[in-house]
Amino acid sequence: MGSAGRDGIVDATIDIDADSLRTDIERTGDFGSVDAETGLGRTALPADDANVRAREYLVERMESVGLDVRVDAVGNIAGRWTPSAGDPNAAPVVAGSHLDSVPRGGIFDGLLGVYAALEAVRAVRDSGVAVERPLEVVSFTGEEGTRFADGVLGSSVAAGELSVEDALDLSDGRVSLGTALEEAGFRGTGRLDASEWHAWLELHIEQGGHLEEAGVPLGIVTDITGTTRGHVSIDGRAAHSGTTGMHARRDALVAASEFVLNVEETATEIATTGTGTAVGTVGRLNPEPNVVNVVPGNVSMRLDLRSVDQLEIDRQVRAVETSLDDLEHEHGVETSLDIPYEIPPTRLSERVRDTVETAASRHGVETLTLHSGAGHDTMQVANVTDAALLFAPSTGGYSHSPKEWADWSDCAVATRVLAECLALLASNTEQHHTYE
Amino acid sequence: MGSAGRDGIVDATIDIDADSLRTDIERTGDFGSVDAETGLGRTALPADDANVRAREYLVERMESVGLDVRVDAVGNIAGRWTPSAGDPNAAPVVAGSHLDSVPRGGIFDGLLGVYAALEAVRAVRDSGVAVERPLEVVSFTGEEGTRFADGVLGSSVAAGELSVEDALDLSDGRVSLGTALEEAGFRGTGRLDASEWHAWLELHIEQGGHLEEAGVPLGIVTDITGTTRGHVSIDGRAAHSGTTGMHARRDALVAASEFVLNVEETATEIATTGTGTAVGTVGRLNPEPNVVNVVPGNVSMRLDLRSVDQLEIDRQVRAVETSLDDLEHEHGVETSLDIPYEIPPTRLSERVRDTVETAASRHGVETLTLHSGAGHDTMQVANVTDAALLFAPSTGGYSHSPKEWADWSDCAVATRVLAECLALLASNTEQHHTYE
Repeated sequence: MGSAGRDGIVDATIDIDADSLRTDIERTGDFGSVDAETGLGRTALPADDANVRAREYLVERMESVGLDVRVDAVGNIAGRWTPSAGDPNAAPVVAGSHLDSVPRGGIFDGLLGVYAALEAVRAVRDSGVAVERPLEVVSFTGEEGTRFADGVLGSSVAAGELSVEDALDLSDGRVSLGTALEEAGFRGTGRLDASEWHAWLELHIEQGGHLEEAGVPLGIVTDITGTTRGHVSIDGRAAHSGTTGMHARRDALVAASEFVLNVEETATEIATTGTGTAVGTVGRLNPEPNVVNVVPGNVSMRLDLRSVDQLEIDRQVRAVETSLDDLEHEHGVETSLDIPYEIPPTRLSERVRDTVETAASRHGVETLTLHSGAGHDTMQVANVTDAALLFAPSTGGYSHSPKEWADWSDCAVATRVLAECLALLASNTEQHHTYE
Repeated sequence: MGSAGRDGIVDATIDIDADSLRTDIERTGDFGSVDAETGLGRTALPADDANVRAREYLVERMESVGLDVRVDAVGNIAGRWTPSAGDPNAAPVVAGSHLDSVPRGGIFDGLLGVYAALEAVRAVRDSGVAVERPLEVVSFTGEEGTRFADGVLGSSVAAGELSVEDALDLSDGRVSLGTALEEAGFRGTGRLDASEWHAWLELHIEQGGHLEEAGVPLGIVTDITGTTRGHVSIDGRAAHSGTTGMHARRDALVAASEFVLNVEETATEIATTGTGTAVGTVGRLNPEPNVVNVVPGNVSMRLDLRSVDQLEIDRQVRAVETSLDDLEHEHGVETSLDIPYEIPPTRLSERVRDTVETAASRHGVETLTLHSGAGHDTMQVANVTDAALLFAPSTGGYSHSPKEWADWSDCAVATRVLAECLALLASNTEQHHTYE
């Protein structure tokens, strides 16, 4: 059994089982695995077969570690350990991430945060370190925004931003989230309420190259980028590509192409002159009818605009509106812009970040503070409780790709710091950095 | 029984049943019908359910009219009537078109030519007009190029441009044409050989506005546009749209958007300065992975370049090559261009066009000579025998759309002229314009 040493430093008995962490991530990565020349890829969209198998495996693993498992109405999965000496009614310290992926995504995005949390909780429990608050591992439903919603679905519900009812009614065009979860056996009851948590920690792969470049094994995120996502539609006139002269056309794809270039130019300009964090992307573009011999009559697009400065996002939105107006006048097309998803930049909890720094320094782990260009469930949780986001280094900066990679040793180091943080935060003292 | 009158003019006993023509087109249009605010639309890709039902209906109708039906190895359907007084071994006079459609196409494109031919042959036979050559109605497989091949599939085989074996091996990515036809019950034997035909006539909806604008009910085509179709691929780097800075991107969709605009600008410039018939279109564009939060890593496109002047097509191809080179240098992407489909402009048979004019003038039907901006099976047939292409006016110029429309009365007038042409061409005299 471990014990707090002098100065409240947790002694070495919080032992991380790096092999177990790796096994859990690799096995989950197998569900929905895709062929890739380099790396390991997977496709596991919310409530699809691969995601359901990943969920079942997580529940099995939580139970084997002795956690009390609960699935809420929108499929968020929580596994709780209540220390025997602790207060079962105290606000828990919670860590986790998500199990869903983008199509052909990597095996670290989300999985690292879920299984690092599971291993950290197991390690704290087995260490015998005296903690008072319950520890909880959480996997949120639908973080990536590739099915049912534009992203951070489960955490939006847990943070009270989206009602359970509205979430269950979300459709992928064929089936509602409620029905899909029901059929998958993951429509539980109640609502995971993040506002009841003492603190939240998410470990994630960086998805960028700053840590690797700096040679630092752990990132502590200060701000998460704000993200505005839009649906853009351009209506021209479908027409025969052979019989319709160039001057008689209202080609929706030509107009959409100008739009894509405008988005790229505006973001580049703002990134060059501003905080340097602005990005603007048309990631999805579907022409109709999309056949070789028809001038495209309609193009629908999805737009993603980000910055850690909301004003830089607002500037991008205004440029988008101007661009669409110009296209209407110059190309005789009709356009529409719908912005269903707006998450402002998030400043993360100084208290929890300090705890991470303390834990890291106690283990001699160097850290780098940086911003996150990617959205995370932590954005939602941070609205209702103290939250922190940790980064493990990406190899080569790849993300949302089978080439996404993290060194297993870096994953273990970050998990060790995470475990220490959980122990520190759950020690329930006035000074959260020590056990007494 | 009818008879040739003075001057060999066929008397009024070649009676077109306009209702029957309309019924056949409307019933075939029901197979694969799609919802549309205006007009009647259908989707019937080669060997899909709708196309198979259309084929079955055609065979049934051919048999009910008393034609001998034959299906060749690539699914081309021919129905022959041999006049009792005629020579069964004489080269036949053949008319027809195709039963397949683009996705969400109209009900006249292809169907008018097939059922006008059927009604014309029936009318000639029932008229008792003395003809010597067999008359044949043909429906070619896969004219539109939306499955298995880039277009005029069955007529390419009939013209000897494509072997039966190569055609059957064509795949839609999941299944070969041979297997699809086999499963549909339309993989016959042998090869329809257009070089054995005395003459070919295709009636088609104009798919443009010239006849409507001129107030003329029948068009006689002088030239069919040449068409070059290419597959373009642009490879960039898929990356997270939040964590990948604007300057670190190789966004395949940004590069593809420049490409689309280059194609449009080049075609517009050539159309403005040249024959006025040049058109250039990117009709199909598919980004990968095509999700909101990933910078597109790959874009594949299909390209369609046309003109009645081959030099204007060549100029467009050179501009495409230059554009792709520029993109490689400016965006760090890799590109490829594959041109599997090149059909040169086609000049149509003066002999058959003269016959059409003679037939039209005998019925007091005004005609307009014009070029066809659309490719047709007639392009292929014209390589191996004398061929003509007739146009019925489009209402509003719509094509490849549920809004495509032709007046039923115009369809009947054109069918009447077509029947007269068949009779004239099958009369087998030295002067093909009269019966003796």
